[in-house]
Amino acid sequence: MTHTVDLSEKFSRFSETWTPKIVGAVNDMHVKLARLAGEFEWHSHTEEDELFFVVEGVLLMQFRDRTERIEPGQFLIVPRGVEHLPVTETDEVKVMLLEPATTLNTGEGEASERTVKDLEWL
Amino acid sequence: MTHTVDLSEKFSRFSETWTPKIVGAVNDMHVKLARLAGEFEWHSHTEEDELFFVVEGVLLMQFRDRTERIEPGQFLIVPRGVEHLPVTETDEVKVMLLEPATTLNTGEGEASERTVKDLEWL
Repeated sequence: MTHTVDLSEKFSRFSETWTPKIVGAVNDMHVKLARLAGEFEWHSHTEEDELFFVVEGVLLMQFRDRTERIEPGQFLIVPRGVEHLPVTETDEVKVMLLEPATTLNTGEGEASERTVKDLEWL
Repeated sequence: MTHTVDLSEKFSRFSETWTPKIVGAVNDMHVKLARLAGEFEWHSHTEEDELFFVVEGVLLMQFRDRTERIEPGQFLIVPRGVEHLPVTETDEVKVMLLEPATTLNTGEGEASERTVKDLEWL
């Protein structure tokens, strides 16, 4: 059955960065938590929108033509097909992600060393 | 194009309770904000899971056999088909909801005076 999920408690269970953990399923979407630090890599998701909700720290989402800044209590939806590059302004950023269960963290290009294929449930 | 959404700023734009406002679309889901106060009504959603993330205040989610308590920084997913009754422990609770674009706030039973059919985008 369904139970309340505490973000702080879940974040306390892992320290790796750029490795989203699944903490919930809502219809066809997964709710994931991730710790981000530094710069990721340019990528896009052909069929999937992706929501970034910042829990702690400040995230800069670079697009090819501009940058959006996301603070705690704010979210940004990256529409399908739009290239983006997450970069942290603070040392570390904690985010809650919402995206289809099928989404690969590095998008639909060739897999890289940062691609995480079998996400862990927390 | 996509822009950062600030929850506080969005909440400052309305004061009605039990009237979710749409603040984003991710794939087939809507992100909604709502102010809750007091007790809602028992209902369920046949085909739709529903996520409640508490932003401010404390929410009690009653099920037929137990109650879950949700504080700021916590969320609860109510699976499809499960009857639930949201009740606020604090005077008012601010929540972020995530549910399919098709979800009616009062579920699939007969519409009530609390049914909101055409949700406003903020």
